[in-house]
Amino acid sequence: MSEQPAGGDLSRLRQLNASAVLRELRGDQPLTLTELSKRTRLSRASTEDVARDLVGRGWLTEVAPASGSVGRPARRYRFNAGAGRLLGIDIGGHKALALVTDLDGEVLNQSRIEIPADAGRRERLAALDRCVAKALAGGSGGEIWATGVATTGLVDGTGKVMLSDSLPEWTGVDLGAHVRRLAPGPVRVENDCKLAALAETWRGVARYAKDVVFLLAGLRTGAGLIIDGKLHRGFANWSGEIGALPAAGWQQAPEHLTQWLDTTTQTTSHSSDGVDGFERVFVAARVGDRGALAAVEGYVRDLAVGASALVLTLDPQLVVIGGGFSRSADVMVEPLRRELDRWCLRTPEIRVSAFADEGVALGAVRLALDEVESTITTGLRP
Amino acid sequence: MSEQPAGGDLSRLRQLNASAVLRELRGDQPLTLTELSKRTRLSRASTEDVARDLVGRGWLTEVAPASGSVGRPARRYRFNAGAGRLLGIDIGGHKALALVTDLDGEVLNQSRIEIPADAGRRERLAALDRCVAKALAGGSGGEIWATGVATTGLVDGTGKVMLSDSLPEWTGVDLGAHVRRLAPGPVRVENDCKLAALAETWRGVARYAKDVVFLLAGLRTGAGLIIDGKLHRGFANWSGEIGALPAAGWQQAPEHLTQWLDTTTQTTSHSSDGVDGFERVFVAARVGDRGALAAVEGYVRDLAVGASALVLTLDPQLVVIGGGFSRSADVMVEPLRRELDRWCLRTPEIRVSAFADEGVALGAVRLALDEVESTITTGLRP
Repeated sequence: MSEQPAGGDLSRLRQLNASAVLRELRGDQPLTLTELSKRTRLSRASTEDVARDLVGRGWLTEVAPASGSVGRPARRYRFNAGAGRLLGIDIGGHKALALVTDLDGEVLNQSRIEIPADAGRRERLAALDRCVAKALAGGSGGEIWATGVATTGLVDGTGKVMLSDSLPEWTGVDLGAHVRRLAPGPVRVENDCKLAALAETWRGVARYAKDVVFLLAGLRTGAGLIIDGKLHRGFANWSGEIGALPAAGWQQAPEHLTQWLDTTTQTTSHSSDGVDGFERVFVAARVGDRGALAAVEGYVRDLAVGASALVLTLDPQLVVIGGGFSRSADVMVEPLRRELDRWCLRTPEIRVSAFADEGVALGAVRLALDEVESTITTGLRP
Repeated sequence: MSEQPAGGDLSRLRQLNASAVLRELRGDQPLTLTELSKRTRLSRASTEDVARDLVGRGWLTEVAPASGSVGRPARRYRFNAGAGRLLGIDIGGHKALALVTDLDGEVLNQSRIEIPADAGRRERLAALDRCVAKALAGGSGGEIWATGVATTGLVDGTGKVMLSDSLPEWTGVDLGAHVRRLAPGPVRVENDCKLAALAETWRGVARYAKDVVFLLAGLRTGAGLIIDGKLHRGFANWSGEIGALPAAGWQQAPEHLTQWLDTTTQTTSHSSDGVDGFERVFVAARVGDRGALAAVEGYVRDLAVGASALVLTLDPQLVVIGGGFSRSADVMVEPLRRELDRWCLRTPEIRVSAFADEGVALGAVRLALDEVESTITTGLRP
């Protein structure tokens, strides 16, 4: 809106202008100064000024003029995604996963370490340390500009785990402080369901949607909400926790699957098999085993009560199914759609996450990128 | 962000500038050109230009210079709330209520007509017509610039009632088209729970909060959601309908109250008594009648299941209780808090609506005001 800034606001305006130029260049196409000036509505002189400054900081790169241009070929600029690195970490019940990416979120290096479900806090943190060290040693080069961490449990603004139901010994761990010792730059920590939802709107199947309910269907059942294009956190960052309400059906939902496993598995316990153990129910259901089909339907019926509550509350454009069981979505989607049709006034589109199990970590990368992009406007980054 | 607009964007920029000036003047204080220029970050010349234009259009009024100012007294401007009128209509199961207000939403005139619950569509629309005619004849002067209509049921973007559970004959009525014949200017129609929520954040007990769950507790139970400071509508405007899910408990909740009424009322039927009939349960509970207390607690217990689902999903800052039963909130709030404590991870603050029964109509006024404010930026209003 500002036509002429007050004197004291000049440097702030410079940052806003820089931010506007960077926003236009986050697409794949390099742009000329004329194109940038038109898109940002900045004057040609201001645009040139900002571009020169950003090239000096390493954010922008000059590329060769477009061939076939008439007259004096115009300089073009593109965002230099290689200027820095982002680190995204997923620390959960069964694994640690770390991704090193460029500033566009392209994965350059990754490492993964399995963790026993019954590991204590110290053992889990030690596995996290090894996982991060391995990812950073992967030779992708470049400095880590920011780190995002996804964890099971509810997280406060400082990066501390306030409450973890699935890993009780995890409650109280100061994950932010721990990870700040592992990598340079700012560290942000967030709940894994929330970041999985974020990943779907950034790089996944929900890219086109502004209102999304993400369902984590796996050993745990959880939800992440995208409202009006933004991750909805809530007043104290405790959103998406409808699963805590018994009437939502999520607490009992996996029991249908474990009961089938109990009746078919006489000798070994399934409890340490994790998602792979449950996979057997879905495999049996897929080939028409009636008991397995009934178990999956019972699971979906309970899942659908809480899912319907979310849909009726928010009226989203899209429901995305992610989490370990989403690999078996082919046997889940139709029963789920039928149950939603039964309870909801309008059943939204249902899509299955296309990520293997890197969705949560990718959401953590997006969180790190948010941090970097917010530093652009405050001018903290050299 | 724009320093210098492209030639063709000049008139658009003028509208944006006018909008910025008006925004600053929506507060109670008149402002000088210097103050306006500072707050809008527009140049002094642009500010003067815009102010002159808006005075000509009737939006702004010049007021006397502040007394005691040194040197040549500076002209001051204030928003002219009297330039036009807004009409807010609430058409529900038992009444029609119409408010005529100034552009600040100050009520200048109102009318109210009781409607039998079993009235047909034609009878209900005729009552609406009489109610609006009476409000407009009230002699408040000035032209209606925009109208907001609140109705029971779900509404589409054109002002048609898509679905009404409580008034089945109301489904399909084209309320937008009907009201456009009653008043000049644009007409917008919206669901009554949504507008009641809007009224609470605009003029009610939720003014300070950005994330609010509004509960309509009355003959019907419903919800309206404010998320990140805005009314959440959802993809097809079907949000807030968690009450449609049996597991949420809202469908059976009022039965606790009707059962008590049935056992204590031998001779007359309570069914046509509306909210006032139910009032007797709350009155009896207030003086310690054990049966009535149990009935209220049963009602609150069922209400709290759906309310907990909303709180766990959204983690709002505030829950507001409105609707007919909110007059009896003194016997409801503590049991509700206990139930929320039981199910929720974090119980938000609970407040009771301070409106008598004009909250919904006031939300309709706010909808009309949104319409007027959106025309400012598109320059439709003379």
